[in-house]
Amino acid sequence: MENLGYYNGKYGLLEEMTIPMNDRVCYFGDGVYDATYSRNYVIFALDEHIERFFNSAGLLKIKIPYTKEQVKEIIKDMVKKVDSGEQFVYWQVTRGTAMRNHAFPGDEVPANLWIMLKPLKIKDMSQKIKLITLEDTRFLHCNIKTLNLLPSVMAAQKTEEAGCQEAVFHRGTRVTECAHSNVSILKDGILKTAPADNLILPGIARAHLIKMCKLFSIPVDETAFTLKELMEADEVIVTSSGQFCITACEIDGKPVGGKAPEIVKKLQDALLVEFLEETKAE
Amino acid sequence: MENLGYYNGKYGLLEEMTIPMNDRVCYFGDGVYDATYSRNYVIFALDEHIERFFNSAGLLKIKIPYTKEQVKEIIKDMVKKVDSGEQFVYWQVTRGTAMRNHAFPGDEVPANLWIMLKPLKIKDMSQKIKLITLEDTRFLHCNIKTLNLLPSVMAAQKTEEAGCQEAVFHRGTRVTECAHSNVSILKDGILKTAPADNLILPGIARAHLIKMCKLFSIPVDETAFTLKELMEADEVIVTSSGQFCITACEIDGKPVGGKAPEIVKKLQDALLVEFLEETKAE
Repeated sequence: MENLGYYNGKYGLLEEMTIPMNDRVCYFGDGVYDATYSRNYVIFALDEHIERFFNSAGLLKIKIPYTKEQVKEIIKDMVKKVDSGEQFVYWQVTRGTAMRNHAFPGDEVPANLWIMLKPLKIKDMSQKIKLITLEDTRFLHCNIKTLNLLPSVMAAQKTEEAGCQEAVFHRGTRVTECAHSNVSILKDGILKTAPADNLILPGIARAHLIKMCKLFSIPVDETAFTLKELMEADEVIVTSSGQFCITACEIDGKPVGGKAPEIVKKLQDALLVEFLEETKAE
Repeated sequence: MENLGYYNGKYGLLEEMTIPMNDRVCYFGDGVYDATYSRNYVIFALDEHIERFFNSAGLLKIKIPYTKEQVKEIIKDMVKKVDSGEQFVYWQVTRGTAMRNHAFPGDEVPANLWIMLKPLKIKDMSQKIKLITLEDTRFLHCNIKTLNLLPSVMAAQKTEEAGCQEAVFHRGTRVTECAHSNVSILKDGILKTAPADNLILPGIARAHLIKMCKLFSIPVDETAFTLKELMEADEVIVTSSGQFCITACEIDGKPVGGKAPEIVKKLQDALLVEFLEETKAE
């Protein structure tokens, strides 16, 4: 199949699948998700994404009606049914189906499991991207990967209209993260990245970048940085599950980064090798 | 019918209605809503709710594919098809149906109109309610009635578990609003209520309360107040479309209000008369 959707045991093409109007996602966005990529029908970093998924659900007291192993098996089986081996592998859980009422529907109403697979490749890391800055007006639960994504939707639209590829959020002068990625800087050979508090998503690509820095003896400083530091960084690094370590060449129309290409290349190559190794044909 | 759902021209019982998995509400909560009550099949304050609905949509650049008059006509026709004349009348618009991608799907993808009607009466205003206080961790767009409602969901659950009826949000010492209502205080004969900025919803029941105060020459001070002022108020008034003017007797287990019952009664009676008059049998 070209793509594949799943909802509580039902399968179909995404554009043909339907879900109940009373799923709590429809009224409250009451759910959490996670996503990664596959190559050769092998899903990259699945364990880490499943861990974060269960953690997000737990923080909102959503009880996933399957074990981690069961969710992994369902997703792995599905990935094999899609034509392309290179897929965007996305799944979410919503807090059940019940007549609209804000408080939880009770334990007799099980949560709903959704899966969405579509052909997509990870991005070429040799490309450089352009960013815009936007005030971070999101809620204070950005550590949870929820389906309340309106600020990211609005940011994505503004980014596209500006002819850019990502938006950097900041609360006052403090940079938090990007609308769909984490952002870090390289300065004087040190990687600086905001701490994993409630203002950023604990990105899995960010964790891999930190791990690689440590492997290469690049010091990592998990401290929040400012917009000024961002503009004056040797390199501005954007990390997400679809583009492990990509650098920015421009922010709000001003040139940035490009002053430590060797370090960036070393990290990019190592991250790509890790991906290619883990997703080798089985 | 016992209740009635609507989605882009299709009708059915709410528990039987389905919607496409690719509706953007499913991935982003990308939509806005509004709601009011009917009596005798007549919808209360419909013009004001429709105005706010179109305003919410406009702030998120969602193009509702109908005029205000058309939306009103669809809702009014539907209300007549439900058994009970006393209904919770709810509608929403979501930013179309398309494969998951944060940026807007383009003008060729029309927005989706949803309506949800179920039997429900406005609350008896002679009841007093118990409140809890919670730090307001929501985004900074609370003036828009969006479907990103997770903080309200979590607050509703905490409220229920505490055996209370509403949660008062505060940002530090400043009271903003309740999870599902606006909150105002009476002190020394003056009504104090937070200004309609981006931290509160411009409640229609709040607007009616202000109008009634002015009719009765009760001064209205649209200034934010503190948690201390809330606890020391003569009366704590919670307003929403389902309970126009209801007072609290307890906050976090401590007794509050009850010191200006005559003013409250005068306002409640006037607001109820307004509702009964507007929703007289046609």
